[in-house]
Amino acid sequence: MLQIAMLIYPDMFDLDLIGPMTFFRRFGDADAFLVWKDRTPIVSDLGLSYAAHHGFESCPKDLDVLFVPGGLKGAVPVMRDRMTLDFLADRGARARYVTSVCTGSLLLGAAGLLQGYKAACHWMSRELLLLFGAEPAAGRVVVDRNRITGGGVTAGLDFGLTLAAALRGEDHAKMLQLNIEYDPQPPFDAGSPERAPVEMVKHLRELRASELAEARMAAEAAVRSPPAFSRP
Amino acid sequence: MLQIAMLIYPDMFDLDLIGPMTFFRRFGDADAFLVWKDRTPIVSDLGLSYAAHHGFESCPKDLDVLFVPGGLKGAVPVMRDRMTLDFLADRGARARYVTSVCTGSLLLGAAGLLQGYKAACHWMSRELLLLFGAEPAAGRVVVDRNRITGGGVTAGLDFGLTLAAALRGEDHAKMLQLNIEYDPQPPFDAGSPERAPVEMVKHLRELRASELAEARMAAEAAVRSPPAFSRP
Repeated sequence: MLQIAMLIYPDMFDLDLIGPMTFFRRFGDADAFLVWKDRTPIVSDLGLSYAAHHGFESCPKDLDVLFVPGGLKGAVPVMRDRMTLDFLADRGARARYVTSVCTGSLLLGAAGLLQGYKAACHWMSRELLLLFGAEPAAGRVVVDRNRITGGGVTAGLDFGLTLAAALRGEDHAKMLQLNIEYDPQPPFDAGSPERAPVEMVKHLRELRASELAEARMAAEAAVRSPPAFSRP
Repeated sequence: MLQIAMLIYPDMFDLDLIGPMTFFRRFGDADAFLVWKDRTPIVSDLGLSYAAHHGFESCPKDLDVLFVPGGLKGAVPVMRDRMTLDFLADRGARARYVTSVCTGSLLLGAAGLLQGYKAACHWMSRELLLLFGAEPAAGRVVVDRNRITGGGVTAGLDFGLTLAAALRGEDHAKMLQLNIEYDPQPPFDAGSPERAPVEMVKHLRELRASELAEARMAAEAAVRSPPAFSRP
């Protein structure tokens, strides 16, 4: 049975979790569970409560998939949280696939799991990956050896299909795609910084500037003090 | 302040709710809340718990948006549930927009809210809309006067953008699209019954045949005994 651990944390972006989880739970013979320090519910970006199925202690050691969702506001304190980074470093070093969506890759990076790997991230935070020795990539889903990382938020659907194909084969992935009618037809074409109006890209960067500055400081702190497990 | 009520119910499909809610909560001056009979948490298709912010009693009478997510297994008992159909009929008759994603349109139909309207639904359940006097439409997002209905599951993203543009303007919608990097690039092209392999479409229909038969019976029962509010 596949063991799939999904990290949850306060202020994580709900869609980053629910998109991929929709696939994970349909991988057939699989145990896809939420994990956090303990089983006290966390409150997400949308104000919803999620309770972990496993605390870090009880989480299986050898995972088929370690998955980390994003959410910049929530990711900042986690990048400064030694306990969580140690957990990610430990399980990530053993996992068959180490994966993320959106700014989840910042947490993988802070845990030392992306050194020398190409990785995706939300377009706005992508360059922060350089701090972790990763190579930021603009792809929607970036596969580098056993690291599979998705771009911002909704990339979790393309990521989920990619992982479904890797673990269960292309036919299984296509069946899941048909089942959730994933035949996207966005009414506008503003979903990437390359094609959205320039002033919108600028405006969003300004809105998030202080959050991005905090994320940079947290990332630098994580690099100065890497998880015990991955210390050279 | 916009009043946006999102119905939740046992076994509802998580992504049907979380996709649109991701937009609703970023509509600016808006109160986007979950509603169910009472505030006892329900358990979703993915096994997660959601607690309503409002019971039917305390839910505001005049809504800007009434939204209903799908999930066929969960929709069947709700189509047989007079209390919920009466609630939908009452709030739907007054709401500025009456909306759904996936099989959520079956619940709108069972509440008498789609008579004479074009509406979308999950491709597999679409023809059931005929029972309610609605006109099944194959579109990803179908707008007919103040009814805005989305197709299966992931159509909730295209739906959310469409509603964002209707309520807040196209620029606001595009900003939201850029923020969640909604620039879909599915690795396969099997998300619609028209383009998926024929045998997959057949296989899925067979897998869901008994559930679909139950849904048909529940829909017929709802039509025989319409909500008090909409009785002619």
